[in-house]
Amino acid sequence: MSQAAAIPIIGGTGALGSGLALRLAAAGREVVIGSRDAFRAEEAAARIRGQARNAHVSGAANEEAATRGPILFLTVPFRNQSENLTNLKTTLTEGQIVVDATVPLAAAVSGKATRLLGVPQGSAAEQAQEMVPDGVTVISALHSVNAKALGDLTVELDEDVLVCGDRKDPKARVAELIELIPGLRAINSGALETARFAEALTPLLISVNVRNKTHAGIKLTGIPDERW
Amino acid sequence: MSQAAAIPIIGGTGALGSGLALRLAAAGREVVIGSRDAFRAEEAAARIRGQARNAHVSGAANEEAATRGPILFLTVPFRNQSENLTNLKTTLTEGQIVVDATVPLAAAVSGKATRLLGVPQGSAAEQAQEMVPDGVTVISALHSVNAKALGDLTVELDEDVLVCGDRKDPKARVAELIELIPGLRAINSGALETARFAEALTPLLISVNVRNKTHAGIKLTGIPDERW
Repeated sequence: MSQAAAIPIIGGTGALGSGLALRLAAAGREVVIGSRDAFRAEEAAARIRGQARNAHVSGAANEEAATRGPILFLTVPFRNQSENLTNLKTTLTEGQIVVDATVPLAAAVSGKATRLLGVPQGSAAEQAQEMVPDGVTVISALHSVNAKALGDLTVELDEDVLVCGDRKDPKARVAELIELIPGLRAINSGALETARFAEALTPLLISVNVRNKTHAGIKLTGIPDERW
Repeated sequence: MSQAAAIPIIGGTGALGSGLALRLAAAGREVVIGSRDAFRAEEAAARIRGQARNAHVSGAANEEAATRGPILFLTVPFRNQSENLTNLKTTLTEGQIVVDATVPLAAAVSGKATRLLGVPQGSAAEQAQEMVPDGVTVISALHSVNAKALGDLTVELDEDVLVCGDRKDPKARVAELIELIPGLRAINSGALETARFAEALTPLLISVNVRNKTHAGIKLTGIPDERW
C-alpha cells in the first residue's frame, strides 16, 4: 500500500478517534472510521465531512476498516481494547502497524479518571502487542493529546506526542503521520515498555486540568529539530 | 519561622540537591545543605559559594539542617529515602513541609534508569508521607527537572514543575519557593497520589533523552496565568 493509503481509525466514533479523523482528513488524508456498527461509523464520518470541507472520510465495520491501510489507529476505551483486538486477529496482516492510544484509566471499572489500572503486561500498549498477530507492530502514542482540542479545528494545537515502540522504522512512519497534523510534534520516547509512563500522562493531565480548569497538553523543552 | 528562613536540602550533596541549592542561593535565599556527613555537606556548600557570588549556603548534618527552615527539600536516591526519613523522625516537627523529589528508579537496585520500581504505597512521595511524623506534610515535586541543567547557571531554564500534595496551602508555599528560580513554573497537579505519575516523568524523560541526545524538560500548554 502506498504512503497515501487510507488511515483506518478503529473505534473512531469516540472523542479521540473522531478528533484524530477530523484532523487527518483536514490535512488531506483519506480516513476510514471503524466501529463495531458500520452504520454508527458512517454517521461519525458524515459529521466529520460536515466539519471539514472536502474531507475524504468514510465509515465501515472495524474488520473492514482495518484492511484499508497499513497504519491503523486504535482509539477505544481500555474496557474494549481486548475485545477489539480479538476481533481483528484474523484481519490484521504482517507488516501492519497498530498505533495504540489506549489508556488503562480506572474509569474502565467505574473508578476515577485520575487513577490507572495495573495491566499485567505493564501497559495497554504491551497488552496490545501481545494480542496482535505475529508481524504486526504496536506503536504507542497520543495519550497526552486532549480529545476535545483535537476535535475542534478552531483550536490551534501546539504540543508534543510521545511515541513509544520497539522498532525504529514503524515508529518513524507513525511520527510522520502524526506530524501531518499542524501543531503536533512527534517525539521518539523509547521502547514500547516506556508506554506505561506515556499512558500515565493521561491521568496526570486530567488531574492538572481539574485543578487548573483547562485542557493542558505537553511540550518537551530541549528537543533538537533533527529527531527521526 | 519567617518566610525568609533558610531552606534545608536533605541529601543536598547530590546533583539535584546541589543544583537546587545553587539556584535558590542565586535567587537570594539562605540554603543549608544536609548530608549524613557534615564535612561533605560543607564541601558541597563551599563549591556552591564558589559558583554563585554572595551565595548564602552552609552545610550541616541532615538532622541539624532539618531544623533550619519550615520547608525542607528531600533530594536523595530512592535507595536512601527510607533511611533518611527514619533518621529525621525525632527532628521533624509539626507544621514542617517535606518536598519529596525522590524517584523510585530501578537503578536503585542496579536496574535501568528507564524503569520504575513498584512502591507499596504507590509512589515514593506516599512512602515519605507514611514515614514522617504526624503533622508534617509531604509535597511531591521536581521530578522532571534535569539536575545537570539546574546545576549550571548558564543554562536558561524554561520549564514546569509538577507539584502534587493533599493540602492546598503547603502546596502553594512550595510553589512559591520553586518559582523563586527564574524559568521554573509550578503547576498544581493534584493530590499526593498523583505523584506516582509525576515520578514516572523521570524515566520517561531519561528515555526521551537517550533517543534524542538531549536533557529534555516539560512544559504544559494551556495553563492559565492565575494558578494558585
